[in-house]
Amino acid sequence: MTVHGLVETPVFMPVGTQGTVKCMSPEELHELGSQIILGNTYHLMTRPGLDLIRKVGGLHRFMAWDGPILTDSGGYQVFSLAKLRRISEAGVEFQSHVDGARLFLGPREAMAAQAALGSDIAMVFDECAPWPCDREYACRSVDLSLQWATICRGGEKPNGQLLFGIVQGSVYPELRERCARELTAMEFDGYAVGGVSVGEPELEMLAQVDMSVPHLPQEKPRYVMGVGTPPQMLKMIARGVDMFDCVLPTRAARHGKVFTARGSYSIRAADCREDFGPLENGCDCYACRKFSRAYLRHLFWANEILGLRLLTWHNLHMYLGLIRRAREAIAAGGFEEFRREFVAHYKEGNEQDENV
Amino acid sequence: MTVHGLVETPVFMPVGTQGTVKCMSPEELHELGSQIILGNTYHLMTRPGLDLIRKVGGLHRFMAWDGPILTDSGGYQVFSLAKLRRISEAGVEFQSHVDGARLFLGPREAMAAQAALGSDIAMVFDECAPWPCDREYACRSVDLSLQWATICRGGEKPNGQLLFGIVQGSVYPELRERCARELTAMEFDGYAVGGVSVGEPELEMLAQVDMSVPHLPQEKPRYVMGVGTPPQMLKMIARGVDMFDCVLPTRAARHGKVFTARGSYSIRAADCREDFGPLENGCDCYACRKFSRAYLRHLFWANEILGLRLLTWHNLHMYLGLIRRAREAIAAGGFEEFRREFVAHYKEGNEQDENV
Repeated sequence: MTVHGLVETPVFMPVGTQGTVKCMSPEELHELGSQIILGNTYHLMTRPGLDLIRKVGGLHRFMAWDGPILTDSGGYQVFSLAKLRRISEAGVEFQSHVDGARLFLGPREAMAAQAALGSDIAMVFDECAPWPCDREYACRSVDLSLQWATICRGGEKPNGQLLFGIVQGSVYPELRERCARELTAMEFDGYAVGGVSVGEPELEMLAQVDMSVPHLPQEKPRYVMGVGTPPQMLKMIARGVDMFDCVLPTRAARHGKVFTARGSYSIRAADCREDFGPLENGCDCYACRKFSRAYLRHLFWANEILGLRLLTWHNLHMYLGLIRRAREAIAAGGFEEFRREFVAHYKEGNEQDENV
Repeated sequence: MTVHGLVETPVFMPVGTQGTVKCMSPEELHELGSQIILGNTYHLMTRPGLDLIRKVGGLHRFMAWDGPILTDSGGYQVFSLAKLRRISEAGVEFQSHVDGARLFLGPREAMAAQAALGSDIAMVFDECAPWPCDREYACRSVDLSLQWATICRGGEKPNGQLLFGIVQGSVYPELRERCARELTAMEFDGYAVGGVSVGEPELEMLAQVDMSVPHLPQEKPRYVMGVGTPPQMLKMIARGVDMFDCVLPTRAARHGKVFTARGSYSIRAADCREDFGPLENGCDCYACRKFSRAYLRHLFWANEILGLRLLTWHNLHMYLGLIRRAREAIAAGGFEEFRREFVAHYKEGNEQDENV
């Protein structure tokens, strides 16, 4: 339960990086059944800036989304996008990738930023270790992240805002376990598994989840950050994961990639040229009810925005529908069969390529 | 009355160049009150090609728009976009600007193309003279256009498709009059004034309309092609014009330009930064009901597609609403007052600049 409503798990959160889920209006997100969306603190603090969003009364009002919002702490993008200036125990001094402005983000600042955004769920400020990563680096990174988590735990928080801890520790089981146990002792409202989906093979990714989730309290939501493909999500639900976010369905859509229950394909492909069927047979989304593959392929080759919109629509419908059916299967006691059947029919493609 | 329904005049037709009104879905066009849209024969024949559209049963089905469609003949774009190869009395041989394919378009081909598209209203194939243009060129151009109009009049036409003639003649009153009279004698279903809005000053544009419209039958629709700004449309309605099409509201939207009853402005401007009011005070369009200037400015600076969508929405709402109110004012006998008042309050800007 959040300030802006109940979230039923497992849940997939569409990503609204810059105060909008790319291509989509808030009404369309509701129509698609999005229960909660994700906002990126780093992006919003670099542009349009937190002062502006504070002035209008928070991110919900700024972007006209009245459902729950989870914000990340900004740490991940500081390390991946910004030009770093200096890292210390207090946090990170960096230059904005937008305009070069000098900014500082540490655990206190990340909490203040998420307070300004007014999100329903805030995340602790952590260091997301790269992959591969040696044991010594991973150990120092866990120590620092735990220290920052303690500061966040006592940091600024608007009424009702929930705060999630993040398990780091790279591929090292004892580091992951220690991190999970110490975070659990701090009593967060939920727990995330971080440092996954940073380039490692799927087996490593699942192994890291397996090292973390069993040491987190079952009665609290468990969230794997930045994951993943449809089969990956089901495999993680089987491991007790409740929450996901991923740019894959929306980003891939803008590159012409269509997700279906049988795998993914490119709408740009020649065999779609005279195909007057829908993106996915049996799909009842707006794009599939109204438009043909031939038309959508034309829109992509002609660089028309409606093409980006309609593929985004379909892919989000596919992701949200899959997780909804997983939820229903769990309630009906048939999740294992549902997962096995889906994974068996899903043809793995290049979903995680840089350029989809 | 067209095959796909009645069109009440005066009417503004949003432009759907490549089989989509840029950024918008067919449902949104209906919601905005679009009665009829325009499709560009040249663009559709170069991509995706007429064979494909013929195969699916026409442009309406291809793009899932069930209202009326007017198609141009392709002539204007052949002369402005394509690499010309050879011009003869039979038509124009040219290379597609998309893939360099060698194509031919003349009066017969333009009619066959519009038959394949299955539009409700087809336009004759004409030569749109440039501006400025000497008398001799304009005279030859009128002769050729009349010859082509005769061929189109007897050309291929699906059941119920209407055909409009196009008055050319540049800035020469006697040429415009002769062209209008000869076309009228051929008995078209409607008549357009072409060769305007090609770079000439507004007074020249209105003068060319004044040279043409009085010589066209009052009981048939009269259409000025490619026009214009809000005041220009009202000035032309006062001169008896019934139909307009223009890329201005949609193209300008994608450059951040907002049309209002008081003039236009750029959403990118610094003074929108902390402006939490709507795009236009008193406007009840979706963009104005839900979002602030500050948010829309952010979307533009962040290159977010939702920004393009919402400004397109607002500008089309403004254009369609203006022409609807003009229609109501005509019905109520108060058009002159309506026009005077609107034009007096509208601050002319740089609406016709290349880059808006």
